[in-house]
Order: sequence, then structure tokens, then C-alpha cells
Amino acid sequence: MTKKEIIKTWIENHEQEAITLLKKLVQQPSIRGNEGKAQAIVVEKCRELGLEIDLWEIDEDPNVKEHPSFHCDRTDFAGNPNLVAILKGKGGGKSIILNGHIDVVPEGNVDDWNAHPYSGFEENGRIYGRGTTDMKGGNVALLVAIEALIKNNITLKGDVIFESVIEEESGGAGTLATVLRGYTADGAIIPEPTGLKLFPHQQGSLWFRLNIKGKSAHGGTRYEGVSSLDLAYYVMQSVKQLEKKRNELILNEPLYSNIPIPIPINIGLCKSGNWPSSVPDLTVLEGRFGVSPYESVDEAIQQFESVIAELNATHEWFQQKPIELEWFGARWLPGKIENDHELLQCISENYTYIEKKDPIIEASPWGTDGGILSNIGGTPVIVFGPGTTSKAHDSNEYIEVDAIMKSAEVIAMTLVDWCEMAEENI
Amino acid sequence: MTKKEIIKTWIENHEQEAITLLKKLVQQPSIRGNEGKAQAIVVEKCRELGLEIDLWEIDEDPNVKEHPSFHCDRTDFAGNPNLVAILKGKGGGKSIILNGHIDVVPEGNVDDWNAHPYSGFEENGRIYGRGTTDMKGGNVALLVAIEALIKNNITLKGDVIFESVIEEESGGAGTLATVLRGYTADGAIIPEPTGLKLFPHQQGSLWFRLNIKGKSAHGGTRYEGVSSLDLAYYVMQSVKQLEKKRNELILNEPLYSNIPIPIPINIGLCKSGNWPSSVPDLTVLEGRFGVSPYESVDEAIQQFESVIAELNATHEWFQQKPIELEWFGARWLPGKIENDHELLQCISENYTYIEKKDPIIEASPWGTDGGILSNIGGTPVIVFGPGTTSKAHDSNEYIEVDAIMKSAEVIAMTLVDWCEMAEENI
Repeated sequence: MTKKEIIKTWIENHEQEAITLLKKLVQQPSIRGNEGKAQAIVVEKCRELGLEIDLWEIDEDPNVKEHPSFHCDRTDFAGNPNLVAILKGKGGGKSIILNGHIDVVPEGNVDDWNAHPYSGFEENGRIYGRGTTDMKGGNVALLVAIEALIKNNITLKGDVIFESVIEEESGGAGTLATVLRGYTADGAIIPEPTGLKLFPHQQGSLWFRLNIKGKSAHGGTRYEGVSSLDLAYYVMQSVKQLEKKRNELILNEPLYSNIPIPIPINIGLCKSGNWPSSVPDLTVLEGRFGVSPYESVDEAIQQFESVIAELNATHEWFQQKPIELEWFGARWLPGKIENDHELLQCISENYTYIEKKDPIIEASPWGTDGGILSNIGGTPVIVFGPGTTSKAHDSNEYIEVDAIMKSAEVIAMTLVDWCEMAEENI
Repeated sequence: MTKKEIIKTWIENHEQEAITLLKKLVQQPSIRGNEGKAQAIVVEKCRELGLEIDLWEIDEDPNVKEHPSFHCDRTDFAGNPNLVAILKGKGGGKSIILNGHIDVVPEGNVDDWNAHPYSGFEENGRIYGRGTTDMKGGNVALLVAIEALIKNNITLKGDVIFESVIEEESGGAGTLATVLRGYTADGAIIPEPTGLKLFPHQQGSLWFRLNIKGKSAHGGTRYEGVSSLDLAYYVMQSVKQLEKKRNELILNEPLYSNIPIPIPINIGLCKSGNWPSSVPDLTVLEGRFGVSPYESVDEAIQQFESVIAELNATHEWFQQKPIELEWFGARWLPGKIENDHELLQCISENYTYIEKKDPIIEASPWGTDGGILSNIGGTPVIVFGPGTTSKAHDSNEYIEVDAIMKSAEVIAMTLVDWCEMAEENI
């Protein structure tokens, strides 16, 4: 057997261990501010593997909060560290970052889940729970790939830099902290849920908040007030028109040809009023604004701000009580690498080796920490991982175990080719 | 001078004391669950006046919570009592209830207030603050009217039963408790803010909650989810159509001829989603549903439920995930007394005596505790008081001091006629 065949066989034989690790990770609800216990499981695994551990709270370095790409409203990181764990190479090979995030989004309405969102329920080859697809399944794939090399005594020339970061779901402050701590490489893989597609171009996104003011009144004479909720609906129509216009411009990009709305604007949260029988005088909308890999963040911001400015200039009510637009919290930079980049070729070839077919290459419909790795760290990034976006952030989120194992195989093969085996293996 | 002239002159000379009392009351933010401190000021005033005090927490009587008209989700009444204070008559005259509520609605967005909502700021003959108009100003008018009789040694035949109740803004459990404790009378005045109009017919209202379910998804692939917020706007359109239909039926009622929307349906609260970059899978709308004095509560409920049932039967998405309609919390019974009722005539005549013009007689655009006094207690009710509905529940709520004093005069005159002076005064 070739070394690659040995690795492949080892991975095929260690599915049960991967499942066990994933369930343990899912059973720790690592929503924002609560990542520590899940992270501890990852640390334990990395220690077992003998990796060089670097564990730190991201506010240890004052430069992180001062960085122009730190878009984060969190102030307390105590007990919820970032982790970098390195499989040191012998030297002379290309290095690679394997980056996954440990934070998960909230579970939403628990009643909509068939099994409890943090149970790690298994059925028909799937593991269910918040974070299975986004992206603890991908993290497990990375650890399986690294373990397969170690357990088969395969040493590489280049360094493998495994990163388990916090704050991806809120804008990437965790990955930013790794870059500012000096972790860059010749390439990076982020196993976000691409459904085993390869995403060389990644959408960016920004969070925004719209404060829409009405005029309160007693509900029994609601005609004496102005409902900020009715006004919010009006504003949402303008936001939808902007989304339509922006997406029409991008639909002919080949990597977006299969994506119905390449760069969506999503309203994710609405809070309006506080009393059933009062006219609501304030509506707050919060959402995410997709940024194309082919525009700058500033250009995108300018387009959104123009729409709001025009409403404030032309709508009689908003002339008196302007809509307020804030950019807050999370921000993901868009990113792209060249279509003929060596890393894209390397993963593609190993995908074909494992799956016996050509990979699908698309642009990612969401922001990842890839924008930070590439824009700030100068590390070229491919997003490739198990799980499907449609289940990320949804109730009954799940991941197929088979996809985790297949992506682990592709990634392990890629490590062998990209970082190169040290002489002693050959 | 006649006794009425003496009373009128006394009231005119005690405006400053009324202002001082109102400011003290406004400076205690007696929002739900926090009525105790404002109530204590009222109790102190009643003790000074020598009234018979009955002070109790409404859950002392287990029958209150068991009553079919107890619509209240509050479980803790400790420290926030109801007050009834009686000016005992000599006997042989008609009794009267003077009912006001001490609770206020929340202040809304503090930034929309020119002065702090609980400052009691005074300017140009107005006192500003949450609860000035709804209805601490009215309560002060009642106390001024009673004090004017006492300080001028005028004794009445009938009892004057002053009530300072909690929970009016949440459905009348406080007034229900007074009725079940035995307080009924030959007539009642509630000085809610009618702008000195007389309201012999009162709109009822119910609180409702709509749970609208979508399908969550990552905001970057929002097309894979179904936004419960978008669905909520669809539902709101149907609710607006129902409002239109119901109001068309009532517009020819003479007492509603000046009211643009006699029985409004107000959406007062919307909570949707919990993450900017997730498609919101649950939207909760809360509102108040106006009930006309010419229909039963059950008929009104039936109409609303039919609209929701039809949406659930005909809309493809709602066929799978039905809208849930709940009736919760507050409920005000509609009420009316005959247009030729003696009490209406008595107040009208005294209004004309004080204001030198005919009163405006309308139907109230909102529910009051009058429905409980009349439907449960059998006490005929007129709503008449200072302040304007348009400022109730609004930012910069205020009341005109002059209106407080004028209503105090009309009410004091009415007490003299309705309860009759005892022989010793004449």
C-alpha cells in the first residue's frame, strides 16, 4: 500500500472515534461567551496527539482590540480561550493552516427540534445538534486527518497549524487574534460546511442595525400614533430592492451561477414596542449584509448607506425622524484566491482521488474567517468541508458522518502533497 | 354664596396643592409590579382626609383568581395593594364609586422624552410625565373633589367610595377585586382622560398574541429558509383588513361619529429572531383588539379567530406550520349605560354649570375598568376626566392643570347632587 492508501484505510477504520468526539463537542453548547468547555475537549485531544499547544485569551494582546478589522462588541473573553496546536514539520515544505471555529449560533426555538439541540442524537448515519454542521463536524475532520498522519508515523516537511478559534459567528476576532499572534502559512483550509464543494471565493458580510422611530400612542387611538413596525416594513421593502439590484450585478459571475441569491441581505432580528396596547415607537432591525468577493467592504457600505440616506431625504416621516443605520458587531471580509492557485489544484486532485469525480468549485454564500487569513494574514484560503449550509443555523441541524470522514481523507491527502512527506517516510 | 359656589371657590384656591400631589405621584414610576410607593402617597392623603381605609393585596381573596373575568398573568401582588377609601354618608342618598388606577404603562423610549418621564416637569400650565394623563391627574381630581367637601364641612347622604386600583392597564384585576370585595354603588365615575368629554359607552379590549413560525437558515443562504418576519407582515395585512371590516360596521353609531377608527386593532409588540445572520424562525406579535359596546366579547373573539383559521386553512405555509393565536393577559369588558341615565344627566348639568356650555358625549376609544364595574358589579358608569387620550401611553405625556381643576369642580358638584347633602348642611 502507498502511504496515501494507508492513511485512507486508517481513517475508514476510525469512524466510531470521530463520532464519539463530535458528540462530546456538540454536547457542550459553545454559544458565544460559553466556548470554554467545548474548547477544553479540543485541547485535550491535541495534547493526546502531542501537538504543540498555544492556548490564550484573545484580549491578552492589546493590539487585537485596536486593529481596524476588530469588529466585536464582546468585552469578556475570560475562560474562553483561542487554541492553536502545531504539528511541527521537519522543514523545507509548505506550511498550512487548518482553521475551524468552536463557537456556535444560538439554538433558536427549541420546540422546532426533534431531539434536544445539544443531545448529539445519532440516526441513519447523521449526528444532530447545534454546531454539528457549523462546524464541529469540520473540526473533527481536521483532527482525524492530523491523527491519521501521526498514528501512521508520517512526518511532513511543512508545519500543520491547527486552529480552533472563538468568535467566528460574530465576526472573526478569534482568527484575527491568531494572525496578530503571528500565525500565517503558505495556504489554509477552512472546513466550513460546503457539502464537499471547494470555495475559492468567499462572500464577506457585515452586521447592521436599523433604528426606526415612530410615534407612540394608546392602542385604542392608534390613529394618533405612527407605528414604527409599519415603517419598518416600508424600510424592509427598500432593503429588498437593494438586495435585488446588487445581486443582478453578480449573477453572471461563473462561481455564483448556481446560487439563487449570491449576496443576500438578511433581516435576522426585529424588536418592536413593549406593550400590546401602545403603538410601538421604536423598531430595531438587525441583519447581515453580504459583500461580494469582487467589491470592497467600503463600496458595499456606501450602497446601503445611500438607500437609507435617500429614504431619510424623501420620506416625509423620516425627514423628521431619520432612520439610524449602525454597523455593529460582526464583520467578515470577503476573500478570493486565483482560480489557478496551486492549493486549489492540490485539494481538487485529492478530492478526485478520494471521490473518483471532479469537485464542484463555487463561491461561498457566506462569510468565513478566510477573509481575515487572506486579507490580514496574506494566507491563501480554500473553504472545503463536510455538512450543508442549509442546515447551519437551522433547527434540526445535522451532519452526515460519511461526509466528515470523506473530507478528513481529502484533507489528509492534501497535507501529504502540500506539506510534503519528510525523506524518512519515503 | 351657595354651597356649590363655596366648593368651586375652594377648589380654585387649591390648585397649587393639587399640583404638588400630582408631581409626587408622577415621581413614583408605578409601572406594573411597582405600584406600592405611589399607592402609599394616595393612602397617606386619604388618611389625612379621615376616610375609612381598606387596603389589601388582591390575591388575599382566592375567589379573585378563580373569577371568569380575571384575565391576568401576574402572580405576585406583594407590596402593591389595592385601596378603597370611603367618605361615609349619613344615609338615604345614592352612593357613588370614584375609581382611578394607580398603575402606568412603561415609559417607552426615554430619549423621546424632552424631560425625564418621571420628573413631573412643569411648564406653561402643564405637568409632564408618564401617568400624568393616564391617570394620576384624574385621581388627583377625585381627591380634590372629596377634600373640597370635607374642608367645607359638607356632609352627604350617600357614600362616596374612592378607589385607587392596580392592574387597570393589564386588564382590570384590581377593580375586579374591589367588586368581589363588595364595593358596588348606584353610579360610578372613572376620570380617565376624556378631555372632559362624557363617555357613557366604553370600548372593551382584549390582548392577543400571534406566534408565527418560519424556517431558520443561515442568512447567507436565506433563500433556504422562510422568514417568520416576512410571514408576520402578511398576517398583519389580514389583521388590518379585519379591523377595516369591523369598523365599517360601527361608523354610523352616533357616539362614534368623530372617531376615525372606533375599535382599533393595535400591534404593540413584535419580537422576531435572535441572530442577525440567521433567518428568524419565530415571530411573536402582541396586540390589543378593540371590542365594541354593541357586541359581546365572544362574538369579537370569534371574528378574529376566523381570520386566523382561514389563513391556516388556505395559505400553503400555514397549512404546515399554523399561526397560533392566544388570548392572554389583559381584558377589558365593554360597557354602556342608557343615554337617558340619571347619572349622565347629573354630570352633564354640572358640566354645563362649570363650563357654561354643553358637554360632548362620545364613546370611549379604549377599554376602562368601567366594564367590570358595570358588567360584574352592576354599577352604572360614566367615564369623564381631564387629559387627552392622544398623550396617554405616548412620550411627553402631559396634563393641563386647568383641566384637572375643572374636572374636580364638575365631580364635586356631581357628588353634591347625586349623593345629596345631608339635612344639616341646608
